Amino acid sequence: MKRVLLSLVLTSLCGSAIAEPLSAWNDTAAKKAIVKWVENATDADRSTFIPPEERYVVFDNDGTLWPEAPLTFQIQFALDEVNRLAPQHPEWANDPLVQSVLNNDIKAVAAAGEPGLIKLLALTHSNITTTEFNQRVANWISSKKDPRFGCGYDRLGYQPMRQLLDYLRENGFKTWIISGGGIDFMRVLSQKMYGIPPEQVVGSFALGEFALTGDGTEIKKTMQGAFNDDATNKPVAIHLFMGHRPVAAFGNSDGDLAMMQYTAANPRAKTFGLIVHHTDAQREYAYDSHPPASGKLVEGLQVAKEKGWTVVDMQKDWKTVFDPAQCPAMETK
Amino acid sequence: MKRVLLSLVLTSLCGSAIAEPLSAWNDTAAKKAIVKWVENATDADRSTFIPPEERYVVFDNDGTLWPEAPLTFQIQFALDEVNRLAPQHPEWANDPLVQSVLNNDIKAVAAAGEPGLIKLLALTHSNITTTEFNQRVANWISSKKDPRFGCGYDRLGYQPMRQLLDYLRENGFKTWIISGGGIDFMRVLSQKMYGIPPEQVVGSFALGEFALTGDGTEIKKTMQGAFNDDATNKPVAIHLFMGHRPVAAFGNSDGDLAMMQYTAANPRAKTFGLIVHHTDAQREYAYDSHPPASGKLVEGLQVAKEKGWTVVDMQKDWKTVFDPAQCPAMETK
Repeated sequence: MKRVLLSLVLTSLCGSAIAEPLSAWNDTAAKKAIVKWVENATDADRSTFIPPEERYVVFDNDGTLWPEAPLTFQIQFALDEVNRLAPQHPEWANDPLVQSVLNNDIKAVAAAGEPGLIKLLALTHSNITTTEFNQRVANWISSKKDPRFGCGYDRLGYQPMRQLLDYLRENGFKTWIISGGGIDFMRVLSQKMYGIPPEQVVGSFALGEFALTGDGTEIKKTMQGAFNDDATNKPVAIHLFMGHRPVAAFGNSDGDLAMMQYTAANPRAKTFGLIVHHTDAQREYAYDSHPPASGKLVEGLQVAKEKGWTVVDMQKDWKTVFDPAQCPAMETK
Repeated sequence: MKRVLLSLVLTSLCGSAIAEPLSAWNDTAAKKAIVKWVENATDADRSTFIPPEERYVVFDNDGTLWPEAPLTFQIQFALDEVNRLAPQHPEWANDPLVQSVLNNDIKAVAAAGEPGLIKLLALTHSNITTTEFNQRVANWISSKKDPRFGCGYDRLGYQPMRQLLDYLRENGFKTWIISGGGIDFMRVLSQKMYGIPPEQVVGSFALGEFALTGDGTEIKKTMQGAFNDDATNKPVAIHLFMGHRPVAAFGNSDGDLAMMQYTAANPRAKTFGLIVHHTDAQREYAYDSHPPASGKLVEGLQVAKEKGWTVVDMQKDWKTVFDPAQCPAMETK
């Protein structure tokens, strides 16, 4: 009621200056499906009503809220960190994986597979305190630009999805990220980029080690108990961290399928599922069965049909991909 | 502002009928220290002000929010479950630990140490779905009474601590539980008992296993990746789940010390620490260096002195221990 009143007052004060929710979406079926579901879920007079205390919704991050091509931003960070740190680590000189990174031989790095990835994470994401790690991520973000889009990675959240997060929160939904990305990495950025506080950001993690220090305490990052928050681990993480069954799930790849199925099977709500299909090579990237790095989408499209999930055609359904105010370089491309 | 107005209106409407915050506390130094810290933390004109977005506070559960003697409630649950399930498990007949449980030989169970405990948890907390587990906890809670206090375990939250949780929340603090107890076990009870939703309850956990079923999905509890959320693991869990450094910590044992030190070393706030000292054999229990089951408190008392933490003398500082309205049997004892 108060929100309605405030909204009326603001409308009369500001006229058309008020931003439409979802203004970065074209007026196509995807947007209509979102709005219809939210209206159904929030109208206490309908059988589809979802009580506020059950309005938990989950979003994948890489490829759903920001790009994951040509490499995920976090892998780019790890590669950049290896380059930055190498001079301090003469012992890395004989390491073929490190040498591939230093030679920018991404094919060789990719060929090292998951063990190679875990090793890169160990070199750049462990054996330092959480404070130091956060600082390194912040430094990297403030100094590095995406080579294609010409602005900082923290300015590349998809504008339609950021508006969707706002729209859902305005309607009483608690927005969570459930991502294969590193939990500490994302949390440096999530509040500013998405309005999501650290405790609502869940990702891959490893356990820390606590210690008293001379003047305080520290938590050192390790690789112990590493948990890869992808595929069937996503519902497990949702249960562990959030402890509620979601009522809506937003993803873009087969790695999100289990999370979406877990959500769709919520017996207490008429749920919503949405898959972002990357169809826009001109403004972003176009891929599904053969992604540049991560984000394979084949089974997800099939199940979406069976389940009636909304599939976003990025090219047709999104008016803008990135916010020109956030990333002015986009405008001049 | 709105809260103040509402409070004024209610005061004039209801007069003295409004419950004092912390009415179950005597007007001793402990209560005064709490109120003073909250006033300092919430007054924007003081240097001790803590912005609302940093007001995260953490509570231990066993021995801090509810009793942990003569056994923790969850161990009692495990023992009761072994008794309930044994007829369905003829293969348990030759198991000495199970036989000790069935014979109510608690000494022998205790002598089995941590491996014994883990085995009891495996028998009663794993290889079932999370849905089934929650139902078992709910069934147990609704059918079982604490033998000494004569009412359900979910009615034995300490009244002063429940008021303290309310008081902190009314002042904009986010209240979290960080406990050695099982995360799934506590979450069945936390909303109703403490007003704390599942996602703000952190405890010992193991990873689940996700599966599609004929008509939906399930998460099966396992013992994989078991994490014991005690002692130096508590700050690790706070970082992992909450992702903020707390500004206040409430515990009762040496197992809470690392969490309290981690909190006290928060460089961004004038923090608060409080230890519940069990000094009241008549109304609850009296122990520190030699607890009945868990809750050893020796080093914590020492560090509390050095750090200026508040130590609650349960006998002197608490007007009531349990809420007579919750547990009427108490009144007639």
